[in-house]
Amino acid sequence: MSTGVVPAGARWIVGVDIGGTNIVVGLIPLEGGDPAAVRNQPTEAARGSDFVVQRVAAMVEEAIAETLAEHGGARSDIAGVGIGSPGPLDRETGVVINTPNLGWTDFPLRDLVSRAVDLPATLDNDANCATYGEWWLGAGQDLRHLVGITLGTGIGGGIVLDGEIVHGASDAAGEIGHMTIDFTGRKCKCGNYGCLEAYCSGPNIAARAREGLEAGFESMLTQLVGGELERITAATVYEAVVLGDPYANEVMAETAKILGAGVANIINILNPQAVVIAGGVTRAGEHLFVPLRAEVRRRAFRSAYNACSILPAAFPETAGMIGAAAMFKQAAFGSV
Amino acid sequence: MSTGVVPAGARWIVGVDIGGTNIVVGLIPLEGGDPAAVRNQPTEAARGSDFVVQRVAAMVEEAIAETLAEHGGARSDIAGVGIGSPGPLDRETGVVINTPNLGWTDFPLRDLVSRAVDLPATLDNDANCATYGEWWLGAGQDLRHLVGITLGTGIGGGIVLDGEIVHGASDAAGEIGHMTIDFTGRKCKCGNYGCLEAYCSGPNIAARAREGLEAGFESMLTQLVGGELERITAATVYEAVVLGDPYANEVMAETAKILGAGVANIINILNPQAVVIAGGVTRAGEHLFVPLRAEVRRRAFRSAYNACSILPAAFPETAGMIGAAAMFKQAAFGSV
Repeated sequence: MSTGVVPAGARWIVGVDIGGTNIVVGLIPLEGGDPAAVRNQPTEAARGSDFVVQRVAAMVEEAIAETLAEHGGARSDIAGVGIGSPGPLDRETGVVINTPNLGWTDFPLRDLVSRAVDLPATLDNDANCATYGEWWLGAGQDLRHLVGITLGTGIGGGIVLDGEIVHGASDAAGEIGHMTIDFTGRKCKCGNYGCLEAYCSGPNIAARAREGLEAGFESMLTQLVGGELERITAATVYEAVVLGDPYANEVMAETAKILGAGVANIINILNPQAVVIAGGVTRAGEHLFVPLRAEVRRRAFRSAYNACSILPAAFPETAGMIGAAAMFKQAAFGSV
Repeated sequence: MSTGVVPAGARWIVGVDIGGTNIVVGLIPLEGGDPAAVRNQPTEAARGSDFVVQRVAAMVEEAIAETLAEHGGARSDIAGVGIGSPGPLDRETGVVINTPNLGWTDFPLRDLVSRAVDLPATLDNDANCATYGEWWLGAGQDLRHLVGITLGTGIGGGIVLDGEIVHGASDAAGEIGHMTIDFTGRKCKCGNYGCLEAYCSGPNIAARAREGLEAGFESMLTQLVGGELERITAATVYEAVVLGDPYANEVMAETAKILGAGVANIINILNPQAVVIAGGVTRAGEHLFVPLRAEVRRRAFRSAYNACSILPAAFPETAGMIGAAAMFKQAAFGSV
């Protein structure tokens, strides 16, 4: 945690989730409950790191003002700020080591935000925060042991064990997207071959769909993008699935199957009570979850499969912000 | 833990490791240190479960008598018995659910042993015990966070986090051997395809070597088994590696590469301080560990790789027995 004193009797924690595209800010009651004054603005990282810190600080101040106006109370009701950011990062020092998406290197994000709003602050990885948010108030409420997976531009993950995030020896635990599920497989942008992310991230679902079309498969996907295959995204694929396109359905079924191998690995290794899946791909709903559960069942040990629910996230937009606040609570009060 | 009282001032814990082939028993000083009165006898499971319980009880009584004769003291110096057994099992009730190798189903092993020797007892999975033994007194001493992998007839695993074994929601965590590393790969005896075990267990290393020879590769392996390829075991492969056989070396290099994908997964997911590898395959020494570390380095995230030592086990024969005693200590005294 940054320097700064947590006021006695504080009633709110500010959660901040900084993503490559958007910043989400809101206030969470200390004892849990509905977020107040939630706001979402573009990150505009290209305008520089100072700009992003100022935007975060302004959003925090506005959210605090709005919450206190609506619910009453004073600034001393605010315990502090939990920040989630892409990593790798050093939780101890509050420094973001490097984030290609934001263009930051060795950036002391936590202390800059803390000073700008004059409140104590914590910093943790965005995927850990999203998992912790689902555990605290979302799909994993009341569980002790769950794994979160976020399928987006990349695939992130977080592990909760006995109510705490597993950070590992160097704050690098939870890189579920870079688990090898085919050691001779597709090249991943991390440099490795056969990572889960090389098949099941949004851009890779789109790439696999395009490859089949280029190889001659017929699909309404081609019409949906007016023949410009490079415009196909994962969202186009779900759209075609919902419209009943057999080829898009096959791409989705293959996605579910490969993701199933990854989820089965998590279940065989960690035996969690739940795997909570967030991100754009989950918009495919039961088109994804039904074949996914079938594949996991086929691959995982029976007693481990039976102990585990495979669930969509409850808060796809705000889990990261909620979890960032939970991380602050854990650091400031020793438990959530 | 079974019923029974842990004597105040006890100085020793009995460790019992029941395997498909052998039973290992010894006494460990409560505060750690060299095992006393270690003995090893064949399990002879075919003679029935009563026979095995009686053999365990006799070995425990002999080991206690020998230890007290040598070090002085009375029976009240013995805190109790920690038992490791193949699983799946229920730690709470001390019942082995089923073990194909031993032929047991819903077998109340813990309480039968406890009554036979009139001492309190605990039961845990053998792979967890082997990992815990390496953590307590072996290659993982002084670490908080490590993963153990045992390469034998199957591939077992255990996870230590903050000094405790991760058991998961249904005592099934740590099934590292059944992690998929090629979702379209070799059939595994668990029914799944592409498990780590389907490539890197002893019998599968031998099978991969045989397959190449049957496909026409030349190797001194053929001479080593007098032309009877079905006699090739993993040990024959190491023997040929040590003798400089290029084909055997290639089989070992491929084993290291595939195992490297599995270890990299563990490192990316859990970010441990060490991965400790035990089992017959480690007799290949640097022929295994050098290419293994190279492959892990190629596949794992830099900061996670740098934080992790990949080590051979310190006690390949006795870690399970030592760890079973550590499990008893954890249950009886709340920490190890």
